[in-house]
Formats: sequence, C-alpha cells, structure tokens
Amino acid sequence: MTEIIIHGIPGSPYVRTPLLVCEEKGVSYTLAAMAFGTGAHKAPEHLARHPFGRIPAMEHGDFRLYETQAIARYIDRAFDGPALTPADPKAAARMDQVLNIVDWYVMPSITSAIGFNRVIKPIFGMPADDDAVAAAIEPARTCVKALEDILGGKAYFAGDRVSLADLSAVSHLDFLATTPEGADMMAGSPLLGWLERMAERPSVAKTTMHRMMNLPEPAAA
Amino acid sequence: MTEIIIHGIPGSPYVRTPLLVCEEKGVSYTLAAMAFGTGAHKAPEHLARHPFGRIPAMEHGDFRLYETQAIARYIDRAFDGPALTPADPKAAARMDQVLNIVDWYVMPSITSAIGFNRVIKPIFGMPADDDAVAAAIEPARTCVKALEDILGGKAYFAGDRVSLADLSAVSHLDFLATTPEGADMMAGSPLLGWLERMAERPSVAKTTMHRMMNLPEPAAA
Repeated sequence: MTEIIIHGIPGSPYVRTPLLVCEEKGVSYTLAAMAFGTGAHKAPEHLARHPFGRIPAMEHGDFRLYETQAIARYIDRAFDGPALTPADPKAAARMDQVLNIVDWYVMPSITSAIGFNRVIKPIFGMPADDDAVAAAIEPARTCVKALEDILGGKAYFAGDRVSLADLSAVSHLDFLATTPEGADMMAGSPLLGWLERMAERPSVAKTTMHRMMNLPEPAAA
Repeated sequence: MTEIIIHGIPGSPYVRTPLLVCEEKGVSYTLAAMAFGTGAHKAPEHLARHPFGRIPAMEHGDFRLYETQAIARYIDRAFDGPALTPADPKAAARMDQVLNIVDWYVMPSITSAIGFNRVIKPIFGMPADDDAVAAAIEPARTCVKALEDILGGKAYFAGDRVSLADLSAVSHLDFLATTPEGADMMAGSPLLGWLERMAERPSVAKTTMHRMMNLPEPAAA
C-alpha cells in the first residue's frame, strides 16, 4: 500500500491532527519533518507543496493535498479502519462544527496566543507576549464554553465514538490545562474528562507535542 | 417537511453559501434577515444562536447549528436532491481543500480587503482603505493561482458536477472581476469560464449580493 507522507513541523497541532487520523485508522505514514524557525515552510520546495506556505502538506503516491481538514477527511474516506465521521447527519454536523470552531476561534486564541506564549516560546527561550495572552482570555473562554455545550453529556464531540472533531480539538487543547490561564478557565470543565479519555488513546499518547519534539512531558499546572 | 431557517445579513458571502446549497438541493428555506452595521450579530438573541457572534446560523426544527461549512455539509447530507459532495475520496478532497482555502486565504484577502473596500463600502458611502487593498493584492493573487491549479481543465473544482466547493467559492469570488484589482488579476484566468458557468445556474442568479440587497446589478469592470 502506498504510504502517506505528512510534511510539517513536529509538535505543530495542525500537523498532529493528520498523524492522529493515521494512527486511529491504522494507516502507515511517514512524518517528513521540517525544522521550526528556519523558514522551511516558505522555501520553494515547500511552496510547491503548499502555495500559502503553511503546514501540513500531504503526499499519497502522486496525489498531493494541503489544508489540514481536507487531509484528515481524505485519510478517513480513502482507507479502511474505523470510520471517523458519523453516519448520522446531525452528529456529522457537530463534528464539522468543532473542526471549524478550532480553525476560526481556538487557533487565534488558545493555540496562537496562549499556547504559543506559554508553552512553545519557553521551550525555545523566547520571551512571552503577555498582552497577547491577556487579549486571548475572553475569546478562549468563549471557545471552552462553546465546546462544553457541544460535548454536553456525550463521551466525544459527535457522540459515543471518537471522530475527526476530537482528533482536531485534542491537538489544540491538550496543553491548555498546563498553562495558568488555561487551568483557570478549565477548572471543573467537562472538557477535562474528555481530555482524560483522549489521553488514554494510544494515538494521542504517541503524538504529544513534547514526544514529537523529543522533550520530557510537562506536569499538569 | 421542517423548513431550514438561515439567520444572517443579506449579501454576506458566508450567508449566501447555505442559501445556494438549499437552492441546488431544492430545499425550502427562509432567510431571517439581520441588518448590516447595527451590531445585530452581537446582540444576546444572536449570541444565543452563535456564541462567537458571526453569521450565518441555522435552525432546522429544534436543531441549531453555526459555522458555514457545517451548515452547508448538513443540508447536503440531511436532504434528498443532487449530492453536492463527490463520492470519490480524491474529488471530495479537492472540494474540502477549496472550502478551507476560502476560509483561510480568500476571506482575508479577496473578501475582507478587496471586496469590502471596493464593493461593500461604496454601497454604504464609506471611504475605502486603499492600504488594505494594496496589502491584499499578493495574497489574493496566490488564491487565484491556487484555485486555478485545482480547477485545472475541469468544469468545476471537484469534477464535472457542482459541489460545495463551487458554491462556497462563487459566494466570495463572483464580484472580484468587477473591481479594478480583481479584473487585473483575473485577466485570462480559467476562473472566468468557471464564473460564467456558475452565473448561469438559477441558484447563483437568484442569490447575487446585489439582488439580496435589492440593488441594481453592477456592470463588469
């Protein structure tokens, strides 16, 4: 079987999502690692794979694809293994909704502001932008509340089985409770139980940011 | 059959996409119109439908949903009528890719910068931000090139039949050639033929921005 190749920076949440999809489906893949902070994503070699210079980009034989959601859905559709998209339209709609909440609202607040300043920058000895973190608190709280409302009493966002929604959201949320601001906004949240369920999955344990970056796992805040 | 209700501002490209999906599927719907520039999208009544205060939001009986992609996919999955998602995984991947190119790259450059300043603001007598337009030219050109590459020699982005990709992209691109900057970057583009094919569809003719806003149609630049 032709192997999936994912080009991207190890530790990136957007790169992690397709790796999680491969792990959950039992699909063989290679992560073609690009270095952080070297401008590799703007090099001509990568722009040929992704004209907007983002990560990840996928190759499957001669089929090339960029955009994380498209890659995740492709791997789910094209391979055997457990379906990661619910058959019921309403359940699938909740999955789609979470995928887009992650892109539109979680990414700028939780990922780019809180995560980047509180988790990534310290690893590289870069100073945190506390103003950016402060400005992200309210939008991040809105994300947490919106995701709690969608999760409701279910085990996973789209029902009683894991879907692409969980694999996307966990890539962006699993470090949040390790930051002071995230620990505060997630105190008592049902998302903590969901995060525990997700952390028990071999796919999630194998692809943590710290493991992908060959760093020791942090303790919870 | 329970009718679809779409809450949103008439003329908004993101509101147009689910209307196009309803039209193509033959699904009965009501557009619950919100006024432009009145802050209606941040009012408690709307925040109860969409906690992030964006548009559109959908109701289908007691099922409430926000996020345009999720609404479009839901209407496609939940109703009879022509399938707007290809069965082939590679074709579906091209559809998904275009949906996300629109969200990530077309929206900030073509829609929010060029379209808002060259099309929307003049309607309301607001001064254009020429710096914002100038800054959007190169990203917009990258969008046009990326979409041309995906379209290739096909009639539509995902193959020989219209898909959600076309209905999303046409909502954001159909005014572009009416702006001086857009006319320049689209000169000779195969996207012009695609736009002509799309304009011939009754769904597209019925939902133009100008028609939704009860304004006369503009002439091409």
